[in-house]
Amino acid sequence: MCQLLGMNCNVPTDICFSFTGFQARGGATDVHSDGWGIAFFEGRGTRVFLDPQPSCSSPVAELVRRYPIHSTNVVAHIRKATQGAVGLENTHPFMRELWGRYWIFAHNGNLADFAPACDGSFVPVGRTDSERAFCWILQELRRRFGSTAPATDVLFAAVHELTLAVAGHGEFNFLLSNGDWLFAHASTKLAYIVRQAPFARAHLNDQDVSVDFSEVTRPDDRVAVIATLPLTDNETWTTMVPGTLWWFAEGEPVRTFATLPGPERKAGA
Amino acid sequence: MCQLLGMNCNVPTDICFSFTGFQARGGATDVHSDGWGIAFFEGRGTRVFLDPQPSCSSPVAELVRRYPIHSTNVVAHIRKATQGAVGLENTHPFMRELWGRYWIFAHNGNLADFAPACDGSFVPVGRTDSERAFCWILQELRRRFGSTAPATDVLFAAVHELTLAVAGHGEFNFLLSNGDWLFAHASTKLAYIVRQAPFARAHLNDQDVSVDFSEVTRPDDRVAVIATLPLTDNETWTTMVPGTLWWFAEGEPVRTFATLPGPERKAGA
Repeated sequence: MCQLLGMNCNVPTDICFSFTGFQARGGATDVHSDGWGIAFFEGRGTRVFLDPQPSCSSPVAELVRRYPIHSTNVVAHIRKATQGAVGLENTHPFMRELWGRYWIFAHNGNLADFAPACDGSFVPVGRTDSERAFCWILQELRRRFGSTAPATDVLFAAVHELTLAVAGHGEFNFLLSNGDWLFAHASTKLAYIVRQAPFARAHLNDQDVSVDFSEVTRPDDRVAVIATLPLTDNETWTTMVPGTLWWFAEGEPVRTFATLPGPERKAGA
Repeated sequence: MCQLLGMNCNVPTDICFSFTGFQARGGATDVHSDGWGIAFFEGRGTRVFLDPQPSCSSPVAELVRRYPIHSTNVVAHIRKATQGAVGLENTHPFMRELWGRYWIFAHNGNLADFAPACDGSFVPVGRTDSERAFCWILQELRRRFGSTAPATDVLFAAVHELTLAVAGHGEFNFLLSNGDWLFAHASTKLAYIVRQAPFARAHLNDQDVSVDFSEVTRPDDRVAVIATLPLTDNETWTTMVPGTLWWFAEGEPVRTFATLPGPERKAGA
């Protein structure tokens, strides 16, 4: 399996601290050594850094850890290959354009027998179940809404319906963002934290590194960090109930929908 | 105006030497300081490094210069903004997916009154004439060929027709690649060199840096480098006649089409 890291903020923020812990899981403190990637939204623009090498020894990861890129939405992924060989074309996150915005997607899990009909509007380049699911979701959104983006609440409801269809095929933890919002699906394992005033000191799980956020923030800053497993050992992370889809905007959760029936959802929590 | 750099090879090759000279033009030896970008194809996979900072002082450019990424097709661009503010969303090269392959595009020039009808299949994210032209070309290719890629000679003929339509709006030097081939349009200014055995020493124009290619190549290697202006001062570059579209594959030109009527083309040469 893989690990996910996301960030959604109300002001452009760098992810260097969180990425330092996350990077170590790609072959150093954990086994996810089949490549990694990270996407930053800066306004409407997006840049994606990908490397099929383990993140713990990747020169590109070193750059990302040291070069503070300020972004309001970030999606990162370290890979333990399940479907699709180790290679750049199978490295998450994936990017497509829809409605004049870049969309970024990363997945942790495994989908069995997921081979939906493809109308050619969004076609996978690699061989992962993950890119196939991403392309299908975008295809269905365009089919449903045509050439104009709907309001975000309508979009979130549509992504919820599509997530239900895909999640029937297996484990489908994902992060999805178009730069305005970040949607996160906890199929089996995902946690988040919202950092806001009063800010405090945080210490990484994976490395002996701390940061005092009160020294590097302004009082109105708000940052949501989402990760497969908590990145720090002295803060309270919220474990997202398995079978829940989350809409984050401006650094906090806006809405949640269940993606499993009630009893199952409780059983999985 | 901007500057273009492309590479097309028969074996994966790093572009570190050429990029060293090219990088200097982004704010050091020349004025193109409004951002830069470079795309590498590795198999079907693609990675794009973008930075709205001048390439001569960009930490990302430093990484690219020092980290030998081996690629068969590379497209790079340094920007002097004409249309569209300085910002990540307006930074070349641009990427889209068509027919299950990534397509990469970078443009040098300026298009006047170019506002074609957009059917929503490929929508610009930024505000450049360049991305508009790229999206329109992809839209028309999909409209013409549906959901299946044609043979490359048929595709090249179609891109030729579309280039004629866009080039009527102004200066339209571009590089376009899907990882299998690289198409280059010399609207006003573009040159290329094919390096093959016997390999020799090359010396950059923009910095006092040399490389002896005979020490770093095998006898069968062949590399075409395409640039707005020659990058070396001791090799013979071919100036592409203004008004010509070129198809490069396996490190050499395959075919050329004129994009200006004969007399005009001669006058511009």
